[in-house]
Amino acid sequence: MNATEYSYAFGGRDAALTVAPGTVVELTTEDCFGGAVKGPDDLPSQVCAFPYLNPVTGPIAVAGAEPGDAVAVHFVDIRPARDWAVSTTFPHFGALTATHTTAMLHPPLPEKVWMYDVDTERGICRFRARESDLEVELPLDPMHGTVGVAPAAGEVIMSITPGAHGGNMDTPEMRAGTTAYFPVNVPGGLVSIGDGHCRQGEGEVCGTAVEAAMSTVVVLDLVKGAAPAWPRLENDTHLMSTGSARPLEDAFRISQHDLVTWTSSLLGLDELDAYQLVSQTVLAPAGNVVDTNYTMLAKLPKTVLSGASAYDGVHDRLRETATGYLAQR
Amino acid sequence: MNATEYSYAFGGRDAALTVAPGTVVELTTEDCFGGAVKGPDDLPSQVCAFPYLNPVTGPIAVAGAEPGDAVAVHFVDIRPARDWAVSTTFPHFGALTATHTTAMLHPPLPEKVWMYDVDTERGICRFRARESDLEVELPLDPMHGTVGVAPAAGEVIMSITPGAHGGNMDTPEMRAGTTAYFPVNVPGGLVSIGDGHCRQGEGEVCGTAVEAAMSTVVVLDLVKGAAPAWPRLENDTHLMSTGSARPLEDAFRISQHDLVTWTSSLLGLDELDAYQLVSQTVLAPAGNVVDTNYTMLAKLPKTVLSGASAYDGVHDRLRETATGYLAQR
Amino acid sequence: MNATEYSYAFGGRDAALTVAPGTVVELTTEDCFGGAVKGPDDLPSQVCAFPYLNPVTGPIAVAGAEPGDAVAVHFVDIRPARDWAVSTTFPHFGALTATHTTAMLHPPLPEKVWMYDVDTERGICRFRARESDLEVELPLDPMHGTVGVAPAAGEVIMSITPGAHGGNMDTPEMRAGTTAYFPVNVPGGLVSIGDGHCRQGEGEVCGTAVEAAMSTVVVLDLVKGAAPAWPRLENDTHLMSTGSARPLEDAFRISQHDLVTWTSSLLGLDELDAYQLVSQTVLAPAGNVVDTNYTMLAKLPKTVLSGASAYDGVHDRLRETATGYLAQR
Amino acid sequence: MNATEYSYAFGGRDAALTVAPGTVVELTTEDCFGGAVKGPDDLPSQVCAFPYLNPVTGPIAVAGAEPGDAVAVHFVDIRPARDWAVSTTFPHFGALTATHTTAMLHPPLPEKVWMYDVDTERGICRFRARESDLEVELPLDPMHGTVGVAPAAGEVIMSITPGAHGGNMDTPEMRAGTTAYFPVNVPGGLVSIGDGHCRQGEGEVCGTAVEAAMSTVVVLDLVKGAAPAWPRLENDTHLMSTGSARPLEDAFRISQHDLVTWTSSLLGLDELDAYQLVSQTVLAPAGNVVDTNYTMLAKLPKTVLSGASAYDGVHDRLRETATGYLAQR
Repeated sequence: MNATEYSYAFGGRDAALTVAPGTVVELTTEDCFGGAVKGPDDLPSQVCAFPYLNPVTGPIAVAGAEPGDAVAVHFVDIRPARDWAVSTTFPHFGALTATHTTAMLHPPLPEKVWMYDVDTERGICRFRARESDLEVELPLDPMHGTVGVAPAAGEVIMSITPGAHGGNMDTPEMRAGTTAYFPVNVPGGLVSIGDGHCRQGEGEVCGTAVEAAMSTVVVLDLVKGAAPAWPRLENDTHLMSTGSARPLEDAFRISQHDLVTWTSSLLGLDELDAYQLVSQTVLAPAGNVVDTNYTMLAKLPKTVLSGASAYDGVHDRLRETATGYLAQR
Repeated sequence: MNATEYSYAFGGRDAALTVAPGTVVELTTEDCFGGAVKGPDDLPSQVCAFPYLNPVTGPIAVAGAEPGDAVAVHFVDIRPARDWAVSTTFPHFGALTATHTTAMLHPPLPEKVWMYDVDTERGICRFRARESDLEVELPLDPMHGTVGVAPAAGEVIMSITPGAHGGNMDTPEMRAGTTAYFPVNVPGGLVSIGDGHCRQGEGEVCGTAVEAAMSTVVVLDLVKGAAPAWPRLENDTHLMSTGSARPLEDAFRISQHDLVTWTSSLLGLDELDAYQLVSQTVLAPAGNVVDTNYTMLAKLPKTVLSGASAYDGVHDRLRETATGYLAQR
Repeated sequence: MNATEYSYAFGGRDAALTVAPGTVVELTTEDCFGGAVKGPDDLPSQVCAFPYLNPVTGPIAVAGAEPGDAVAVHFVDIRPARDWAVSTTFPHFGALTATHTTAMLHPPLPEKVWMYDVDTERGICRFRARESDLEVELPLDPMHGTVGVAPAAGEVIMSITPGAHGGNMDTPEMRAGTTAYFPVNVPGGLVSIGDGHCRQGEGEVCGTAVEAAMSTVVVLDLVKGAAPAWPRLENDTHLMSTGSARPLEDAFRISQHDLVTWTSSLLGLDELDAYQLVSQTVLAPAGNVVDTNYTMLAKLPKTVLSGASAYDGVHDRLRETATGYLAQR
Repeated sequence: MNATEYSYAFGGRDAALTVAPGTVVELTTEDCFGGAVKGPDDLPSQVCAFPYLNPVTGPIAVAGAEPGDAVAVHFVDIRPARDWAVSTTFPHFGALTATHTTAMLHPPLPEKVWMYDVDTERGICRFRARESDLEVELPLDPMHGTVGVAPAAGEVIMSITPGAHGGNMDTPEMRAGTTAYFPVNVPGGLVSIGDGHCRQGEGEVCGTAVEAAMSTVVVLDLVKGAAPAWPRLENDTHLMSTGSARPLEDAFRISQHDLVTWTSSLLGLDELDAYQLVSQTVLAPAGNVVDTNYTMLAKLPKTVLSGASAYDGVHDRLRETATGYLAQR
């Protein structure tokens, strides 16, 4: 799927493509600035026009998906499409600045652009300080900040907002090798993907990651009758629940509550027993603490699961599909 | 130092012991229930008497420590003192329950006790479900939930509260091999330590970890004129800033702000350059989301630091002291 | 305008009616349950079907309204349409209960219905306890919980959510005699109104007010080029700014920030001088602390304004229009 | 009681005075700056020395007060002691600025001092803009920002912090004619009072009110066995519960929860019936949204109480005592 047309929201749009469950889809995504920030003088507040920020590619319908089902999005490959990437501050956006909702009388912090060199061969992107000569090579760890489905209740939600439909969760866990599960709210589910990052710290504290256009390969699949309340992730070592809300403790509560009830269900465990087991074993990293909702993750090591498997093993099957695809490429 | 007498607060108490900087101190700590919860029928609300919860051992003065200095607490060894440990729910305490401040009309969740077998030889503690037969062996990862100094401004703060003085931060990073730095507010600094955990998930969601009495060895040291605003941690791979506040995003902000300014200072980097660099490289795990303040950590990989070293390399020196001590034991 | 068809969202819908600025509009609104809760056994979770909650009447376009303008909605009269009204608890909704975002392991509080007698002649509604004989007559103070316009950026937002577009702010200040100002985001502005309350406490703590169908009269007007960032209200004695966000302190910050800058603008006052003056004179009541965003108001007595008048006196003119209308009725 | 010596904390101090229940006490209090800010060039960050801020007069023991009792503090008269008062901004303090906990990269807002003329004869204080000629006369409405008792659990808490012990709640309701009830945590209760304000907006948004030294008259009384969980207030028309916490919604929850259970108890009403009744009748103004904890009030009109009376009518009796005292003065 070539991203020749972008959308800036989840919901309110017909499928651009419909695929059968299990299909491998190749797609491209633009960066969160729509590619408009190409150098240190391209200030986002000048070269981007609200609301045309954070374009997403899609939506893609999964044939047969009905409300109550889960769509699975397995990331096979996420590859920076250019040899540069970009990060910026943005007026009144970020965790260490007054914002339009954490409203204060401070003038905005300076708006600045950092250009990164991207070397996919060596697997690095290079940070270069603006006010001194420091350069630091950072490992590439490509991921998508924005992945989600059409929301419930007919809502149309800007692509910068994360929520129960997914969206702009901005977690570094959304990397190749991860399967994400979303609740289906409308026929087809309508998956959209965007906001590629060469890498991102947890919390995305300045408001933007190492933003890049991406060439991405996903497998889209369907799990009938398995809609989670909030997006869930799975990789080879961990199950993960997400919560996106404000204040941040509510994002934490949502993610932990979901993981406790999920664990209870997977292990046939009393809910308080699951609460206890999760309490001693969970990891709780921040996704983002800058967007219109904040995102927390609750990560459970699979070693705790006594062999139980989520969604009847769909992650393992999608891993096999991915392996087969990559072997043939 | 034998913990024959305990304190339940930071501040308001004279030193029980004074040591020279660089001294190795062996101490014992009781568990957060004062050892009173010994079996599944020992409900904490019945066998513990508020405010006699979460006893800490100390305070220990570091000779020569004056306000404006930092005391360094390096954890050499943390070893469970018994072959059992315990975790519980507690009425109106925890992240997934109404509390006295997140006040609601719900009755409390059931109060339950989970006893863990501890096997230090095999390095595991065993979770046993209360309502089914499930047992799960979990790796020991011993740590102290509560480490801190006498607060500023003459305050006396219950040992269950984390803050700028440290206290009950409940982060799993407070394990052997870690150095913690605290601001000195009163002569001697007055370090107290307690609340040993055989292991703990991030966030400590049910309110208690795998609570255990501990035999612990620390090195106490002094860094003149280097008081951090909030506690900082360092291990062989990461620098860490902490923030303890509510709501949770303020704990995040404090920790990230401290790490950005610390990085700026260590690398001679413009503050916005440091903001950018930290944004792409930081880890942001929860400490606790249950105590009277919540705790977040901001963890920076040392690989980002271009060789710069914090506090003139005191962590490395304390590691050597620890190695020497352990070799002789 | 007869409410023969309802909408459940702001945005995504064409105007049902277009009026010239200054037009008096008579309309009817259904209660937040769509009239389906008619007695104590009509539990909302059974007789209402999500997302068909909180119907709004409209949208009404104001001819000539363009993005950048403000639409003014002046409430002339709000009259309960039936001799009964209703309030309920609702599972996992309200301020003193676990919710889907303040997620906890508690089962929901009991779902209950309270029927109120409404006597418009005597100006009272009667509370009757469910579990005892207590009855209390409460003064009628009719208002609309939900008033707003089509959102920016093409979003479609459920009618239960308050935000910069207005929506479900649930403030008792939205009573007859009040003028509300909204930013115009799309041509015509597209005003919708619903969620009538016979009266409501500040915060709407149990989640619902004394809910009633209403016969309501408004004047719709237009103030060119005067779009506020957030909805503002004005009555004969006070100017009011609103903020709708989470956590509640951000709603407070938004409302106070808007009032400070508004005061600065009205009085030609330095921003810090306005900050000071507002600090000593403002009232800060809660609107709602239960909806998907919380709402706070910042109310400034007009006595502080040294005669300055907002929006060139449109409120006073709308009051005259209202007086004329009521005299003729 | 002459305030010749001040304290800067609640707790950790012996009684300066012990009185029998029902005693009228005349006292003086200094302003929150200790009187050190006397003109526009006296910047608080320069003329005040942390932690010597917000001095309180006391503590005063009430003879016979034991843990489990309530002490009642009835305000008979609060009178500005000088013909001037002062307000300021303070670096990183206030609701519309970055703070040490809402940590950001902004430099502090400018530190400024506003001097007010106080005319007790005319009952006004005069705001004078710093950057223009605007002057506004504001009605005097004298109150105390800081009133409380020794905390539980042996804590010593800075006088700027509000909590379950009272302290720096900064609510304009603490005016003459109001009775405040506090839980007794130590023998005598140990009441301290300070932080007089000529008037204050709700929320105290810039961080300081119209700060003044006060000549104040209180009656101290004792209600055996009636300790509230959080401070409560009563005047001739309303019962009020307070909550002091962060985030602000928790302060709201605490205050509303307390008012619901109090109403339930006073009226013999089922808890959900009380939840319903309070929901429709309560006022929910902010106290402060700037201090180390935020404060919300829940105000119930006594007209709702069907004649029930709190604490066996102690407020009415204290009003009579006050009337007698004022008649004789």
